[in-house]
Amino acid sequence: MSSTYGENLKLSIFGQSHGAAIGMTLDGIPAGLPVDFEALQRFLNRRAPGQNDWSTPRKEEDRPEFLAGILESFTTGAPIAAAIYNKNTRSGDYANLRDCPRPGHADYTAQIKYGGFQDAAGGGHFSGRLTAPLCIAGGLCKQWLAEMGIRIDAHIASIGGVSDEAFDPLNPQSHAVNADFPVLSEEAGAQMRAVIDEARRSRDSVGGAIECAVTGLPPGLGEPMFGGVESKIASIVYGIPAVKALSFGIGAEAANLRGSQCNDPFTWENGAVKTVTNNAGGILGGITNGMPVLFRVTIKPTPSISQPQQSVSLSRMENTELIIQGRHDPCIVPRAVPVVEAAAAIAIYDLILGNTQTDRRKESWI
Amino acid sequence: MSSTYGENLKLSIFGQSHGAAIGMTLDGIPAGLPVDFEALQRFLNRRAPGQNDWSTPRKEEDRPEFLAGILESFTTGAPIAAAIYNKNTRSGDYANLRDCPRPGHADYTAQIKYGGFQDAAGGGHFSGRLTAPLCIAGGLCKQWLAEMGIRIDAHIASIGGVSDEAFDPLNPQSHAVNADFPVLSEEAGAQMRAVIDEARRSRDSVGGAIECAVTGLPPGLGEPMFGGVESKIASIVYGIPAVKALSFGIGAEAANLRGSQCNDPFTWENGAVKTVTNNAGGILGGITNGMPVLFRVTIKPTPSISQPQQSVSLSRMENTELIIQGRHDPCIVPRAVPVVEAAAAIAIYDLILGNTQTDRRKESWI
Amino acid sequence: MSSTYGENLKLSIFGQSHGAAIGMTLDGIPAGLPVDFEALQRFLNRRAPGQNDWSTPRKEEDRPEFLAGILESFTTGAPIAAAIYNKNTRSGDYANLRDCPRPGHADYTAQIKYGGFQDAAGGGHFSGRLTAPLCIAGGLCKQWLAEMGIRIDAHIASIGGVSDEAFDPLNPQSHAVNADFPVLSEEAGAQMRAVIDEARRSRDSVGGAIECAVTGLPPGLGEPMFGGVESKIASIVYGIPAVKALSFGIGAEAANLRGSQCNDPFTWENGAVKTVTNNAGGILGGITNGMPVLFRVTIKPTPSISQPQQSVSLSRMENTELIIQGRHDPCIVPRAVPVVEAAAAIAIYDLILGNTQTDRRKESWI
Amino acid sequence: MSSTYGENLKLSIFGQSHGAAIGMTLDGIPAGLPVDFEALQRFLNRRAPGQNDWSTPRKEEDRPEFLAGILESFTTGAPIAAAIYNKNTRSGDYANLRDCPRPGHADYTAQIKYGGFQDAAGGGHFSGRLTAPLCIAGGLCKQWLAEMGIRIDAHIASIGGVSDEAFDPLNPQSHAVNADFPVLSEEAGAQMRAVIDEARRSRDSVGGAIECAVTGLPPGLGEPMFGGVESKIASIVYGIPAVKALSFGIGAEAANLRGSQCNDPFTWENGAVKTVTNNAGGILGGITNGMPVLFRVTIKPTPSISQPQQSVSLSRMENTELIIQGRHDPCIVPRAVPVVEAAAAIAIYDLILGNTQTDRRKESWI
Repeated sequence: MSSTYGENLKLSIFGQSHGAAIGMTLDGIPAGLPVDFEALQRFLNRRAPGQNDWSTPRKEEDRPEFLAGILESFTTGAPIAAAIYNKNTRSGDYANLRDCPRPGHADYTAQIKYGGFQDAAGGGHFSGRLTAPLCIAGGLCKQWLAEMGIRIDAHIASIGGVSDEAFDPLNPQSHAVNADFPVLSEEAGAQMRAVIDEARRSRDSVGGAIECAVTGLPPGLGEPMFGGVESKIASIVYGIPAVKALSFGIGAEAANLRGSQCNDPFTWENGAVKTVTNNAGGILGGITNGMPVLFRVTIKPTPSISQPQQSVSLSRMENTELIIQGRHDPCIVPRAVPVVEAAAAIAIYDLILGNTQTDRRKESWI
Repeated sequence: MSSTYGENLKLSIFGQSHGAAIGMTLDGIPAGLPVDFEALQRFLNRRAPGQNDWSTPRKEEDRPEFLAGILESFTTGAPIAAAIYNKNTRSGDYANLRDCPRPGHADYTAQIKYGGFQDAAGGGHFSGRLTAPLCIAGGLCKQWLAEMGIRIDAHIASIGGVSDEAFDPLNPQSHAVNADFPVLSEEAGAQMRAVIDEARRSRDSVGGAIECAVTGLPPGLGEPMFGGVESKIASIVYGIPAVKALSFGIGAEAANLRGSQCNDPFTWENGAVKTVTNNAGGILGGITNGMPVLFRVTIKPTPSISQPQQSVSLSRMENTELIIQGRHDPCIVPRAVPVVEAAAAIAIYDLILGNTQTDRRKESWI
Repeated sequence: MSSTYGENLKLSIFGQSHGAAIGMTLDGIPAGLPVDFEALQRFLNRRAPGQNDWSTPRKEEDRPEFLAGILESFTTGAPIAAAIYNKNTRSGDYANLRDCPRPGHADYTAQIKYGGFQDAAGGGHFSGRLTAPLCIAGGLCKQWLAEMGIRIDAHIASIGGVSDEAFDPLNPQSHAVNADFPVLSEEAGAQMRAVIDEARRSRDSVGGAIECAVTGLPPGLGEPMFGGVESKIASIVYGIPAVKALSFGIGAEAANLRGSQCNDPFTWENGAVKTVTNNAGGILGGITNGMPVLFRVTIKPTPSISQPQQSVSLSRMENTELIIQGRHDPCIVPRAVPVVEAAAAIAIYDLILGNTQTDRRKESWI
Repeated sequence: MSSTYGENLKLSIFGQSHGAAIGMTLDGIPAGLPVDFEALQRFLNRRAPGQNDWSTPRKEEDRPEFLAGILESFTTGAPIAAAIYNKNTRSGDYANLRDCPRPGHADYTAQIKYGGFQDAAGGGHFSGRLTAPLCIAGGLCKQWLAEMGIRIDAHIASIGGVSDEAFDPLNPQSHAVNADFPVLSEEAGAQMRAVIDEARRSRDSVGGAIECAVTGLPPGLGEPMFGGVESKIASIVYGIPAVKALSFGIGAEAANLRGSQCNDPFTWENGAVKTVTNNAGGILGGITNGMPVLFRVTIKPTPSISQPQQSVSLSRMENTELIIQGRHDPCIVPRAVPVVEAAAAIAIYDLILGNTQTDRRKESWI
């Protein structure tokens, strides 16, 4: 099993990079939720390639066709299905990819796992292109969360060692995010773009990190142990290709702190319980405490680089040098920002649909 | 839903810190697997408190009674159930905990979520004590993995800023792990214990990190997207209380690297495909590549400290000072080492049970 | 996987007939629900053996001990766990059962499936005794449903060819159910008891059927296709040993009807939409229509009979005659009545917890 | 949640009767399984309408387009996705359907559940048309089972009171099934067609039953309790619209039998354990015993009849007479035969993928 996520909603993602279509089905969504198709397209465009200088010049149109589940811009309660049809399918010869796996890619592991039957073209089902249907589902969830007053914002936290400012953990929305190249500090953004340019010129690539904030969540969301907010977010975020690390709140820095530094003191503020700091990233015991949920994702450098690399020939059982053809993003971090938002939106919306604690007891369930 | 994990095995954990018993059921385990109860008890003792200087002097016996599923030291194929009965239940008055939540604990979020009906004593279902049944399940899985030649080893990577040596990512088993205080470098271990002592004396606590290695895995294990090895491990590791960060292989450092530095070149070695480096941590596209799987977990400082802390009275709606009574571990990192191993063992064993790719095609399924 | 049920609640049942304990964990239950332990015990006593003439004279006490999840007679929101400890464990020699399987029992299939590692004593995990923990979970759900105005009532529909009256499909509660021997017609009940007596005297057993009604359900409960009320009820009812058939509403008789006879006309009645007849058994398209849900379960005759039966020796690979020792219920139908109610209660409560359609759209989810 | 089935494979079905497309995703299928597209189309044609006299003259083409997961007629291991595009979408005015629900259909329950947001045209997601994607998935599974020597055959057991011969429960394949109108007895078939004709002429419809046999299964397949073969088959069969009853083996007749009649004696036959009779329908304790699995499904008469029927106006809150326009199958039983086969194939294939008992213990899992 693989490409299915969720307990209360069920997201199923399908497709291969060069197959007939990529797409998704999303089951378990209540009826009567509005869908803003234009806003969704704008969201998808943030992920699409070829929109600007710092991504690959390939032009793909990520324009989903909705096959089911939406009628006159409202959800019907039936499963939602959408497909993005591929215009340029199955060109070129991919036999080489089966024999000579690209370092840092899933070519080798797919070859072993599927015994050579996998669709190897363009990475097949392991292609970053599969994040497009993730963004369809996530873009929809983001809209529905917004209706409840829940916002999800992400920005580039660092690229190639250049760091952006961090969100204010108590009030992430106080920062304005640059729309085109999502950073808080324009100066840092300019430096990052220079780093990307430099990597492209040296036929290399560069990694980075993304910080994401979810604001407007009520306290009490999430479940104990394996159903906690962190587990739910982690299991979908680690489904995004190239993610190597994920942390919440103060994150890995917690290893160096004392309890007296790390604990967030409680305080009353305007009739509500808040914490004075937000090292916890809005989560205690897996459950939201009403403060912004903050997490940070590390994205490795694009493995497709045009420098010669050492690989192997699986058939000839010998080492060989590999030169990857084609043009690839020298840095996928900017395009990954909406993908991280989409993943967070799906996880949070799933948690909300499953939140049976608060309302079942007090009020009629009819 | 909450305390249930797994797709091919089903682990369900129950209990509250001061309830009648804590325990687990584990369904989906094949019949005929041997169980070494003594080895399991030794594994559980690594987690149990009061074993040494640097943990709390409370003496709990984590001695499981098996209620079902095992007959004459072999699994029967029926669900396994085990309970650890509490000797000292429900002592003291916990009304205060409901009104005045401890910073860094789940008291507040549980109070909101469960409307005051939660078992608040000792943290209830959110207590670190619930990692004992996790270790029952994980200790069993670890034994069954060992029969297949798969080993899971973890050590303290850092405490309070003092770092241990790291595993050799190509050969983690080349390091000897100190059994009592699981570090690779005795010198680092001594410094860590000094940091813990210092924290205890200042009525504070200290955090740290744990590095874990899984060796002996074949290539091809894991599923694409949300079924990847990272997602499976993350969703159980984030179920361990106090975890704030999780990374695989090179981890967060990937943000600062070039593709040419981060990609692991392939090479033939003794008739098998290996990678020259192991920045990927043994996983490509969510699927094992045959190299050791390496991950790192950050544990925040114990939130229970005996210094005065700022909190709130929920009933009086005012700020108040809280002093936590009783003695607590100044550092839970050493005791969390077997817990991380247990979580990894459960995740890996679940993946193995669900691995339908390799054998279904070629051979009879009977 | 096996003994785990539910999507929104998670029921896990463990134990073997002669093991240390049988029991269950029930996760996903909201906090704050009251538990009436005495009413639960009365419900369990309806299933327990040795209560009267027509069941086995063995005396088991089905007295559950609650290990977790309930505090001062209210649910805490944490998983509920309960165990019934066996007093008489592992007596006698069951080697014969492994070699010479009882016709109509799971001895042979368990032997094949688990390779001889199963706990064969008393049928092990396949024993009818495992319906006791099902009744713990179901008895609790039944109480919580009653608080919402939902009632579940079942009676013996037939035994050995003697039929009881049927429920009025429009108003099942208009019938009084005899508590000791649950029938609507005392006359039919007397005949049934005579049939059972006759079966016992001839060292045989006899089957029967049970009719169950769920009243008070609102319209709109259930999901399309595989999530329909029938699928949810069927997958748990077929988990009860000895069930051979299940039908809803008019059931198998629908095969002989015309559409004009089978369709239930709609009508307004006291400001609500009702149907004039209830052939549908309260379900259309898998979703409740507000009429009573009615279903019927066929229970095969107890396979344990003391007549000589033809079986095989698995080791000697030859046919043999088997004589089953001990005393067994000549008819388990009366004791199965509360088990069917329990199964229905768990299925319905699971559906209610998962019913996200009605409330999410209109009102705040906080 | 609704339209998702399976534990080891994940089937998700989408679409509405008059929407852009109906289709399915099927995840968890091993790589390297061959797909015979022509055989699949022949299977789908058995379900398609307008193929003959006794079904509706509407002509739909059920021609699936595969969007993902299959490459050069072999599965790739990635999720399979297929869509059937609708040619004639959204014609006519369906406002009436929302206001005046058809008796025996899901119009009313959908209206209540989805608050009027459902796609009401042609029954929307509740249409029998959704069995076409079920047949895509089931037709594929049937092919893969055939490769293992497992056959699934069904025939019309009765229509409107006219019964076909039954399968020989010990050897169902000894019967030849008529391909066009799937019966064993040509004479019974002729009578059934006369009954259907008569129903059509009287603007009525007629129900029936289907018997299905699965042969070639090894003993030991299935899991205890809720994971038994019956539960797995029941939860998907009850997802087929119009099913009112389901029984296994001797079925409802078991209620009238003695244990000495119902128990199937074991016997050695050609070096294998068999049963002399097959009242159990090949299943003991939820697990296959190696004999043919037999079950029987009751299908209610098509609810769409062109006679005037009593219904209600939901808006005007008054009773009204409804006349359904258009032409409909007077009997859907013949077309439901492949649907029942498809459901059985999916359930059995899911069980096989999850069968971890036999092979994990004895052999290497690599």
